[in-house]
Amino acid sequence: MFEHRRQVAFHEVDAAGIVFFPWFHVYLHEAMDAFFGGLEGGYARLINERRVGLPAVRLVSDFRAPLRYGDTVAVRVEATRVGERSLSLRYAFFRDGGGEVAAFEQVVVATDLARMCSVPLPEDVRSVALAHLA
Amino acid sequence: MFEHRRQVAFHEVDAAGIVFFPWFHVYLHEAMDAFFGGLEGGYARLINERRVGLPAVRLVSDFRAPLRYGDTVAVRVEATRVGERSLSLRYAFFRDGGGEVAAFEQVVVATDLARMCSVPLPEDVRSVALAHLA
Amino acid sequence: MFEHRRQVAFHEVDAAGIVFFPWFHVYLHEAMDAFFGGLEGGYARLINERRVGLPAVRLVSDFRAPLRYGDTVAVRVEATRVGERSLSLRYAFFRDGGGEVAAFEQVVVATDLARMCSVPLPEDVRSVALAHLA
Amino acid sequence: MFEHRRQVAFHEVDAAGIVFFPWFHVYLHEAMDAFFGGLEGGYARLINERRVGLPAVRLVSDFRAPLRYGDTVAVRVEATRVGERSLSLRYAFFRDGGGEVAAFEQVVVATDLARMCSVPLPEDVRSVALAHLA
Repeated sequence: MFEHRRQVAFHEVDAAGIVFFPWFHVYLHEAMDAFFGGLEGGYARLINERRVGLPAVRLVSDFRAPLRYGDTVAVRVEATRVGERSLSLRYAFFRDGGGEVAAFEQVVVATDLARMCSVPLPEDVRSVALAHLA
Repeated sequence: MFEHRRQVAFHEVDAAGIVFFPWFHVYLHEAMDAFFGGLEGGYARLINERRVGLPAVRLVSDFRAPLRYGDTVAVRVEATRVGERSLSLRYAFFRDGGGEVAAFEQVVVATDLARMCSVPLPEDVRSVALAHLA
Repeated sequence: MFEHRRQVAFHEVDAAGIVFFPWFHVYLHEAMDAFFGGLEGGYARLINERRVGLPAVRLVSDFRAPLRYGDTVAVRVEATRVGERSLSLRYAFFRDGGGEVAAFEQVVVATDLARMCSVPLPEDVRSVALAHLA
Repeated sequence: MFEHRRQVAFHEVDAAGIVFFPWFHVYLHEAMDAFFGGLEGGYARLINERRVGLPAVRLVSDFRAPLRYGDTVAVRVEATRVGERSLSLRYAFFRDGGGEVAAFEQVVVATDLARMCSVPLPEDVRSVALAHLA
């Protein structure tokens, strides 16, 4: 189980006084970036130099409780399926000293960013996912 | 069928050169805001003065094609269920001069923002949804 | 005098209940984008295809009053200097039915985005600026 | 000298391939938040419970070099003036293994967020600033 921690920032709160839900998806993406941090050069090199990305094609989001400025959230990431060209990832968000606040099921597809078409999962990406298979 | 149009902004593109997926959710929320634009004082007054919000509790997102800076997207919104305290909304995104790029199914719950608990849907909110029931 | 109008969005408000100041800069950039809307293909084609950008090298920001969700802001843009490789632009923000809420002085430099070095201002960019010279 | 470190995130890059300048201001604000981290309950409690904020009234920004996804930036913060109701703060941004990429001079005013009017700087806020006076 991989865990990424993130503090809610001042500006991530909306007019309702709670974290605007797309920021949960930003936290999710940051957690995915950290999840692949063990790749040589990290996720940044995968994107910037190898020009392979992992865009989401499907995302199921369950929001169970609000987050507020000052909260810290722990995002737990695991792979639930490792395919030839796609991965399924599950994210569970916990508030410090509290329960689960949100859960996400995501399918991402390995994509050649120059031609914008699917490609086989790079071996090192696949290995990270397999190392965290549920 | 309600339609909201939105241009992709310069900064909504990410390191992969395409719109970062949480921005789709921002567009979705802007479309929901416009969908309820006929309320007296709009969605802003619902939030700021009446202190009732419609936070999402569930959101299923299907991303079918990328968006890029310079694209204009049409977001079509309709209600698929109008309950006592919750609504289901469906959003379909179309790129100008192109096909469907994304689709979303969202469940929102009428929420008292001061006490952060569910409340019956206000009558005027309910009416807007019923007027656009699929 | 060029004017761009923008509604404050739900999520642009922060934990203090007012628009987070970097969103003023996003509005400014959207106004600059619209200011150059008369270029063939707009600012988007300048960036995406001609690969010339206008990054800011200096920006002086004066914030005079807060903006809130529900406000509409009018951004007035004019050029105050048109150089060989750089432009100075002035932005004044007015709240609907109210006074000036912010003012900005910006210097941007024409930049080859592939080599990330300054270049002469493209003729059509220069013309737009000259047409709106204070 | 107070230092705050921040990695550039995937989504902070724009259609020009470099960090969109308002994100520099987000980093700046995060650095200010961390600068006041020693307050009891941090900057979050100042905002959420004590309802005192430090909105910027003036900000002079100099952008010297671009940042890219994958970069880490060190933000050095110091106070340059501590007044009765306002503070001047200076921020210098350095890229890891590189030179200064941006510098900012900011004036913030202690503000009662309920009445949205200036108030004397709280003593503990003042102390943090004095401890980091240039």
